[in-house]
Amino acid sequence: MSYFNYLECSKCGERYSKDEPHNLCHCGGPLLVKYDLERVKKEVNKDIFKTRKKGLFRFEELLPIEDEKNIVTLGEGDTPVLKIQNLGEKLGAKELYIKNEALNPTGTFKSRGAAVGISKAKELGIKTIAMPTAGNAGGAWSAYSSKAGIELVVAMPEDAPELAKKEAYVYGSKTYLVKGLISDAGKIISKGVEKHGWFDAATLKEPYRIEGKKTMGFEIAEYFNWEFPDAILYPTGGGVGIIGIWKAFQELKELGWIKDKVPKLIAVQAEGCNPIVKAFNEGTKDSEFCKGANTIAGGIRVPKALGDFIVLDAVRKSNGTAIEVKDSEIVELLDILAKTEGLFICPEGASLVAGVKKLLREGFLKSDEKIVLLNTGSGLKYPDLIKEKLPVAEINADI
Amino acid sequence: MSYFNYLECSKCGERYSKDEPHNLCHCGGPLLVKYDLERVKKEVNKDIFKTRKKGLFRFEELLPIEDEKNIVTLGEGDTPVLKIQNLGEKLGAKELYIKNEALNPTGTFKSRGAAVGISKAKELGIKTIAMPTAGNAGGAWSAYSSKAGIELVVAMPEDAPELAKKEAYVYGSKTYLVKGLISDAGKIISKGVEKHGWFDAATLKEPYRIEGKKTMGFEIAEYFNWEFPDAILYPTGGGVGIIGIWKAFQELKELGWIKDKVPKLIAVQAEGCNPIVKAFNEGTKDSEFCKGANTIAGGIRVPKALGDFIVLDAVRKSNGTAIEVKDSEIVELLDILAKTEGLFICPEGASLVAGVKKLLREGFLKSDEKIVLLNTGSGLKYPDLIKEKLPVAEINADI
Repeated sequence: MSYFNYLECSKCGERYSKDEPHNLCHCGGPLLVKYDLERVKKEVNKDIFKTRKKGLFRFEELLPIEDEKNIVTLGEGDTPVLKIQNLGEKLGAKELYIKNEALNPTGTFKSRGAAVGISKAKELGIKTIAMPTAGNAGGAWSAYSSKAGIELVVAMPEDAPELAKKEAYVYGSKTYLVKGLISDAGKIISKGVEKHGWFDAATLKEPYRIEGKKTMGFEIAEYFNWEFPDAILYPTGGGVGIIGIWKAFQELKELGWIKDKVPKLIAVQAEGCNPIVKAFNEGTKDSEFCKGANTIAGGIRVPKALGDFIVLDAVRKSNGTAIEVKDSEIVELLDILAKTEGLFICPEGASLVAGVKKLLREGFLKSDEKIVLLNTGSGLKYPDLIKEKLPVAEINADI
Repeated sequence: MSYFNYLECSKCGERYSKDEPHNLCHCGGPLLVKYDLERVKKEVNKDIFKTRKKGLFRFEELLPIEDEKNIVTLGEGDTPVLKIQNLGEKLGAKELYIKNEALNPTGTFKSRGAAVGISKAKELGIKTIAMPTAGNAGGAWSAYSSKAGIELVVAMPEDAPELAKKEAYVYGSKTYLVKGLISDAGKIISKGVEKHGWFDAATLKEPYRIEGKKTMGFEIAEYFNWEFPDAILYPTGGGVGIIGIWKAFQELKELGWIKDKVPKLIAVQAEGCNPIVKAFNEGTKDSEFCKGANTIAGGIRVPKALGDFIVLDAVRKSNGTAIEVKDSEIVELLDILAKTEGLFICPEGASLVAGVKKLLREGFLKSDEKIVLLNTGSGLKYPDLIKEKLPVAEINADI
């Protein structure tokens, strides 16, 4: 049973009812879901979660779905946390972990946001949803909307990963390729929303996607027996994951379930698209639009995130940092991780391996700290990154 | 703790010690792992499994790894079982389920066999493993051997799925493309094994892969609260999965944990490669080599399986059947499943949707039976099956 109470603007604090669809606040701020945590504290024991059927909906008290018949699930969440010891030793980190979101129904963490976003849309009776996407969110929302019987309109950059296009197509979404970046796709969707009355599910323009992503924070805390690790590295594009994890940790603290210091949240970006890193270094509250954004890690090619100010706040309040890595480092570390740990991850995730290497070398992270890399998806969605050269053997050849 | 007792030949019954590497029996029969089930019955309560950390190694008593430090895990197993209601209604099945093996570390059920096979190889001190593969097993064994620090030599058909080649390559296996079928790759590996002394891990030539696959059977039984569903459809190539599930069900019955009738096991093949279907229909014990084997579902393009006689025996003893479907039906049902259930699965899995449609129509399966489709992998590994045509929008276009 959900303890969802109301929606609250992250900028001005205005409250909105939970019973009808909402997008942004009048002031332009993203809305956040607020729960009756006082009642949760009294009525819920955190040990209950692990006795339930696996998947993110086992955290139902802290999710916004009020009637379980509206839950649209494909088995998302409860992805493995693995200690990466071989690579950890090479990098000089004794307690290096990866949470592998590749093991989600659509191969990325976007399944989480879509599961909760689409379930809530079904609960609110929404018929058509529209969204811009860098690629993977479009694939995920397409899958869940197909199961829910909700129509989805998606716009993504023409150069989005081939597999994201195929996903949107195979699930039957109305999909447009846009000659430009995700920000250009966003403009086209906004116009369509105004014209057709579709529900706008762009990042942070609907309040429920964060709640899905938030469960990564719960799972990490539970994995460490309801303690926090020392640091979490997160590949930062729209930043919903880092905001979700931050929100999860605030809720856990408010519930009194964890009393530790919150982990250092570390936003990793690519050199070619680094608005959060710039803003962090310059000490500003918001980021500036990054012109000519360019990186092979398409999921973090977001020139200006709507929730940039929340990301920056979380990074600062958690004593974290924001760093950038080169595309060449991403490619190199993706390969090294595969060859040492048997993990073929997405370039966004590989940026974290490059990032942790840098932060250990610089001393920002210490060798005995518990460090979690939040890998957002599978390398299988980026086949073009691997240029294999393999020998061909004739029938009956000797090898 | 494992209750592994000894290895036993599936043909002549000869026993082999569990403490050194073995391949086939002297008589040519595959070896099967035998446990001390009498002791398990006395000492283990089946409710213990669900209290453990998720993943297939939670069934440790019924797995062959004796020291947990040898476990090589990437978080495999415990994949979701989903009720597919939208499509079930269309097909006239009230209780249609899919177990989605796409949510494994390498995107297919091959992760299970590799996890147990590589862990046991590590336990036995094996340094180099060689295997032929249709593609996905090579990807999976490459991943786990990379983590374990074991050298892997792989041979796969030149026309294996692109992504399987990329996986073997990125994980650093010594990989050969062979101008021929998996049977030709097998011959090349056999010669290499003889020449170099590598450990041969071809399907059923090592006894532990089955044990990994077996856990699918445990998970299905547990999902239905330790009862059996009425039927399980399985895409049958080498047949290790169906043999594993059959073995799991025999163990559960011997343990007295389930008293039901075993589910009808249904082997689904493609028209272009149907040796098991032919043998089933002709009433023979073994299958004949299928010349010119051809289907888009590469994982079931196995012209002659070493364990064909075990598959046929399991299908018959379970009152199941063996059926073939057309490639065109596979493509059609893959698309329908994606558009109705939000599941983009591999063509091998889609063959089951075509199969269940046929068996419901013919009356072999009834509308109120509990039917499980065992989808072996993700559609993401077969991008070429989706030929998307998407409109391109200019910047600031109206949609």
